[in-house]
Amino acid sequence: MAKEMYDVVIVGGGVAGYGAAVYAARFRLKTLIIAKEVGGLIALTHVVENYPGYSSLSGLELANKLKEHAEYFEVNTVEDEVTGIKKNKDHFSLKSSSGKEYGSKTVFLATGTKRRELNVPGEKEFYGKGVSYCATCDAAFFRDKIIGIVGGSDSAAKEALLLSEYGKHVYIIYRGENIRAEPINLESLRKKKNITIINKTNVVEIKGEKKLTQVIFDKPYNGSKEFKLDGLFIEIGHLPQNELAKQLGVKLNEGGEILIDSNSRTNVPGVYAMGDVTQTPWKQAITAVAEGVIAAFSAYEDISKGKVSYHTEA
Amino acid sequence: MAKEMYDVVIVGGGVAGYGAAVYAARFRLKTLIIAKEVGGLIALTHVVENYPGYSSLSGLELANKLKEHAEYFEVNTVEDEVTGIKKNKDHFSLKSSSGKEYGSKTVFLATGTKRRELNVPGEKEFYGKGVSYCATCDAAFFRDKIIGIVGGSDSAAKEALLLSEYGKHVYIIYRGENIRAEPINLESLRKKKNITIINKTNVVEIKGEKKLTQVIFDKPYNGSKEFKLDGLFIEIGHLPQNELAKQLGVKLNEGGEILIDSNSRTNVPGVYAMGDVTQTPWKQAITAVAEGVIAAFSAYEDISKGKVSYHTEA
Repeated sequence: MAKEMYDVVIVGGGVAGYGAAVYAARFRLKTLIIAKEVGGLIALTHVVENYPGYSSLSGLELANKLKEHAEYFEVNTVEDEVTGIKKNKDHFSLKSSSGKEYGSKTVFLATGTKRRELNVPGEKEFYGKGVSYCATCDAAFFRDKIIGIVGGSDSAAKEALLLSEYGKHVYIIYRGENIRAEPINLESLRKKKNITIINKTNVVEIKGEKKLTQVIFDKPYNGSKEFKLDGLFIEIGHLPQNELAKQLGVKLNEGGEILIDSNSRTNVPGVYAMGDVTQTPWKQAITAVAEGVIAAFSAYEDISKGKVSYHTEA
Repeated sequence: MAKEMYDVVIVGGGVAGYGAAVYAARFRLKTLIIAKEVGGLIALTHVVENYPGYSSLSGLELANKLKEHAEYFEVNTVEDEVTGIKKNKDHFSLKSSSGKEYGSKTVFLATGTKRRELNVPGEKEFYGKGVSYCATCDAAFFRDKIIGIVGGSDSAAKEALLLSEYGKHVYIIYRGENIRAEPINLESLRKKKNITIINKTNVVEIKGEKKLTQVIFDKPYNGSKEFKLDGLFIEIGHLPQNELAKQLGVKLNEGGEILIDSNSRTNVPGVYAMGDVTQTPWKQAITAVAEGVIAAFSAYEDISKGKVSYHTEA
């Protein structure tokens, strides 16, 4: 066969994929990473202080350390986009947008998510300069600050509660009438003196100079459409990148996330998933890496036991 | 109440406990680590190359990095041994061997494992006089010596590789037929000219005078049950440290490991477990840390929802 053959092809260049690569390589599995972009979402994060073992570093630094670790075990990365994938009798075929074709016994889907954006002026400009999509990641940078959070889901409510532990005041800005949070979280929200809900309101613009300083609403609040803020968290959901999973018949939940078991296996033999694209709730770098590591254990076991029957010729 | 009150008390000073501490502190939970020894088992490991993000460092360095990360979020460590624990109406009480008492809404059991012993005549007598349970600690004392290592696991294989860097010759003595090591390690074993595997054989006695001089096998090897050695390393597994879990009525598996669900919860509300003491199969630093992180999410959720009802007074 003309196409290159692997034991493991990992689709996605975020930390989940690289964590998997480190272990797959240690298991002596012939491993390749194919990534549209190296680094994944975390590479866009200004400061990461929640990857245990690194007190503080940039998301890009963390992503690079993971990549270097995979390279230490001789795993290469191809910067390319996998556009088509199918399961043959004894292996998977992957086609890329550059026209290359790869074969592999197993496929690791570490394709991550795209965050849902507000799509308003200033959102991109002030990302990492006041605008964040992750309270768990960034709350600590807003100690004693005035913080806004856009969204009305249970996630938004929980993020608001966390933010209220740090911020001087937290404003939840929601387009609808009533926050759709679990009762217990709603109750906690009500008890918090430093949380205010601004409902039936949209943020239409984000402004500042070096950093975000204010947002513009679509209707006046306390007499003005201009509203001063030090930080704005956008929590209006994520879109799992599940196109390849769909092509393979991998089961998804209602939100389009890939369903994995505690061994990072999907319902399709030989297909594993890890990180933000899966249904696991934590969405942290460390948990994504662990899911990748566990997938490598499972793939090694499945290949060894012949559950994945195709054998690479060395 | 006279005793100090916490949201989270973590028992154990290994990487699992420190991973949990980083996240518990980020969730603004009042957190304390109580550890008999800081570092856990990994601190005895010569080289760690499988904590994704660090290509290569010593186990002690990794343990220290985790501890520093927890300290970065102002989590203190008390070097003390928790000997008694009970659940009261609204909190847990922990008593230490130094006579201190602590109260906490939740308890994290990150108590790890103790090494398993051979239980043969001479083992205790020659401990520290030729008998060792830690190649990383003691390999250097056996330069150019004849060394035995008992065990057939991946850990035994790795220790044998390390010992072969020092010893004149290393004999792996294994009761089973085939060493159960990672392929990368098996391959390295085969390449080493100064490693020999003696399979289907047990050590039944350890003999010597001031120091170990020979062991007795249960069947002849090269015509004799007596086998001359300068050192014997015992690497036959670990015993979960589950005494506190038993006091709390936490469910264990047949091997005495604590049963946790995918959220690191045990069957006892307010009690979580992580790392080597649990039933999860991977026993890796990275998966232990992730289990600790997930426990912090669960504890934060449970405390927020009032499932754990005691409230700390700040």
